[in-house]
Amino acid sequence: MSELKFTDLIAPVVVDQKTALRVTILGGGSFGTAMANTAARNGCDTIIWIRDELIAAEINTTHINQRYLPDYTLETSLRAESNLEKAVSDRDIILVAIPSHSFRDVLRQIKPFISAQAIVSLTKGVEAKTFSFMSDIIREELPEVSYGVLSGPNLAKEIMAGMPAGTVIASNSELVRYAVQQALHSALFRVFGSDDVHGVELGGALKNIYAVAMGMAAAYKVGENTKSMILTRALAEMSRFAVKLGANPLTFLGLSGVGDLFATCNSPLSRNYQIGFALGSGKTLEQATKELGQTAEGINTIVQVNARAKELDVYMPITAALYEVIFEGAPALNIAVSLMKNGHRSDVEFVLPHNEV
Amino acid sequence: MSELKFTDLIAPVVVDQKTALRVTILGGGSFGTAMANTAARNGCDTIIWIRDELIAAEINTTHINQRYLPDYTLETSLRAESNLEKAVSDRDIILVAIPSHSFRDVLRQIKPFISAQAIVSLTKGVEAKTFSFMSDIIREELPEVSYGVLSGPNLAKEIMAGMPAGTVIASNSELVRYAVQQALHSALFRVFGSDDVHGVELGGALKNIYAVAMGMAAAYKVGENTKSMILTRALAEMSRFAVKLGANPLTFLGLSGVGDLFATCNSPLSRNYQIGFALGSGKTLEQATKELGQTAEGINTIVQVNARAKELDVYMPITAALYEVIFEGAPALNIAVSLMKNGHRSDVEFVLPHNEV
Repeated sequence: MSELKFTDLIAPVVVDQKTALRVTILGGGSFGTAMANTAARNGCDTIIWIRDELIAAEINTTHINQRYLPDYTLETSLRAESNLEKAVSDRDIILVAIPSHSFRDVLRQIKPFISAQAIVSLTKGVEAKTFSFMSDIIREELPEVSYGVLSGPNLAKEIMAGMPAGTVIASNSELVRYAVQQALHSALFRVFGSDDVHGVELGGALKNIYAVAMGMAAAYKVGENTKSMILTRALAEMSRFAVKLGANPLTFLGLSGVGDLFATCNSPLSRNYQIGFALGSGKTLEQATKELGQTAEGINTIVQVNARAKELDVYMPITAALYEVIFEGAPALNIAVSLMKNGHRSDVEFVLPHNEV
Repeated sequence: MSELKFTDLIAPVVVDQKTALRVTILGGGSFGTAMANTAARNGCDTIIWIRDELIAAEINTTHINQRYLPDYTLETSLRAESNLEKAVSDRDIILVAIPSHSFRDVLRQIKPFISAQAIVSLTKGVEAKTFSFMSDIIREELPEVSYGVLSGPNLAKEIMAGMPAGTVIASNSELVRYAVQQALHSALFRVFGSDDVHGVELGGALKNIYAVAMGMAAAYKVGENTKSMILTRALAEMSRFAVKLGANPLTFLGLSGVGDLFATCNSPLSRNYQIGFALGSGKTLEQATKELGQTAEGINTIVQVNARAKELDVYMPITAALYEVIFEGAPALNIAVSLMKNGHRSDVEFVLPHNEV
């Protein structure tokens, strides 16, 4: 092992307090906390909003997020705040790291305090009832603001441990992209730009489907050939779906697409992978969920995307096969059948149309 | 585990002997043998050319390729032939599975016997002295023939074991694509089509570079965030290089691009990965090569691609950093530095140009 360490790469940050960006993170989960800590380390004037007054006070005293990141000491300059008005008013960027089911509600709460702040979603997923993406919710609830979404293969603990990582800020506003890069970019955390908002958030929203498929395949002890095919056919159907929503298929070549999918499919400890493994071993969804002790987000995503794909007439054979296996009693091997079906013969249909040989 | 097996998916092949494709595979390595066996199983009239008369005779008697695939019995209809003229004359498709350093020489030998046969390369890599791809060599040596290249994440042993796999046939000729799909496609081996010949062969030629980088990163015990970033930045520089040669960047979303890269980077037993690991642990190339007992192909590819990228003025920071680490004594951590450098800020530059924020 070489003598150098990753942390040797970090240059000291020189900050001009008068021009430091004022950044607020909404939500004290592990990823929100990791991004808050990154912004504070970068010299931003940083507030993390945590609803629970006691937890906010504890973080301000101990500089530890005991519940989500107990093993790491946070920057002492990072302030926790439980008053939403104080946290949000008179700031430059609001990073929203709130679970998808409460995302809209929190935006409604901050609406009275928003003037020129940019809003950036850190949340992956879709709103269950409406199948809205986070960018859609921002546009609907705060139609006047500049906004963006951040997505990529970003396990919070690895970022806190100082392992190199990258992410993507997608926004139509060059100013938003620039500000988020200023706030979060460091020698160990690289922030790439994109203007394909839907493409970037779809990667994070859809990937859990394929973690279930990968777990299911693992139960059959498949090799690298099969895993690679699942990964690429997953990319094919994700990008087909995304293009239907106006995204650019090339976005899936990047960190928020194949990068995040790779990390998700390579994480055998994730709930999605484990539930897939249980299903592939012949268990029912009920049995698998009971063993895991909780539902996996991928299962909900399968239900939603399968329905939406039918509405939009998008060919998504893996998602459809997963739905049939989980909810209609089809044998798990149908996933393999769906991979091998002859319907689409083009490798990348944006290169060669799939109705050609 | 469900009761069904992958092999249950195979439908019996009904063959009309009068119209069966006549397929010859040149080369008796593991992948050539696996493809020959697949064609024979599909009902093609199949010959595998093996230079060594004794080995050819042995295969015809025992139906086992003792050297490369000792654990599998081949289709009895597959014939081995050591006479090149007999093997090549009066056939429909010639699949060439000859190592890159002998590829040109074998094409020159078969030239007198070629009339209307299509030539398809199964070989990954570049010709060392000329930096020619296999499709370039075919065009140079046999300028009149229809040709194609086959590439994908195709470990021969997994194909022989009946695990689902997919590959890509790239050709400008629809007839060649169709014929190769007819010859090789089955319920367990799916053959996708593409017309981006250079894009497809570049995936297989360049991937070994990044297996070295992945092994080097593993020596630093990096997590999923970092591995995902290596994978996507690898795709970024591979597609940048390919586009310079006239390929379509979207090809890298498919099996021959990210699919093969994923399989290669996930194979810690490969020579390329292991030499990277040794280099990342502070060993010199000489020490690492000595321990492995042989050179890794990725090292040669790094030398060639680094030189070519400079000539073509293509930005390939991972390849350049590997070159500096291996041949110019730079610390292995430079790979991380190259990932984190601020030069290109766009996630996918074909979506957002890299000179924008």
